[in-house]
Amino acid sequence: MQVTRLLLQASKKMASDANCIFCKIVKGEIPCYKLVETEKTLAFLDIQPLSRGHALVIPKHHGEKLTDIPDDSLTELLPIAKKLALASGAANYNILQNNGKLAHQEVGPRARAHDPQAEREGRAGCGLAADGDGS
Amino acid sequence: MQVTRLLLQASKKMASDANCIFCKIVKGEIPCYKLVETEKTLAFLDIQPLSRGHALVIPKHHGEKLTDIPDDSLTELLPIAKKLALASGAANYNILQNNGKLAHQEVGPRARAHDPQAEREGRAGCGLAADGDGS
Repeated sequence: MQVTRLLLQASKKMASDANCIFCKIVKGEIPCYKLVETEKTLAFLDIQPLSRGHALVIPKHHGEKLTDIPDDSLTELLPIAKKLALASGAANYNILQNNGKLAHQEVGPRARAHDPQAEREGRAGCGLAADGDGS
Repeated sequence: MQVTRLLLQASKKMASDANCIFCKIVKGEIPCYKLVETEKTLAFLDIQPLSRGHALVIPKHHGEKLTDIPDDSLTELLPIAKKLALASGAANYNILQNNGKLAHQEVGPRARAHDPQAEREGRAGCGLAADGDGS
């Protein structure tokens, strides 16, 4: 219980947008299949996976683009993406972070990173990842 | 001079591969147009830019894929990519990190991140970035 409270307190301090679908997921107003949660970061499976194991790793701090996110909310993203890649066992995968409509930012404005995950759990997902092993 | 020495000492401690083109760039054996250098990270312009401002941000620690890089060599990559994006003034840009041939890893095996940069400096580059403002 204490951990949960600490996380909620931390997320309250961060920038948030009432109209942002990811902020609603961070607050628990919209459910998600949670993979990793820390004080500043949330990772979950994409509900519209582009390929197997498609996961999103987002800073809880709301921002339109990478440049809107404080450095201390960026540092965890790749180490967490790495954990998910290791857990998935994927041999081939992409980490992608799009900014702006011309750069294919789809849900937004909201900065986040895509990450492959959970291929071996048999879940739909993987966004931009494909495992060449056929496993 | 002292800073340079410290950087060299730090890079010597990290994993390196004599046949890796990026390790040669890190060691200064191959020249590059350097953008940012820290103890653990090097950012430079891609010599075969896919679009304006194409830059690479690499950990000095050699590794084939994201999962081969220590967490403390991953944490700086996105904050430095953010600095380059801010410096470039790009409105639309992508951050991309490919792992494995099926995921379009071209130079490898070596983990690194792509980043847009220097659009306003008129340099070729930008890799996967395009500025929709036409600036």
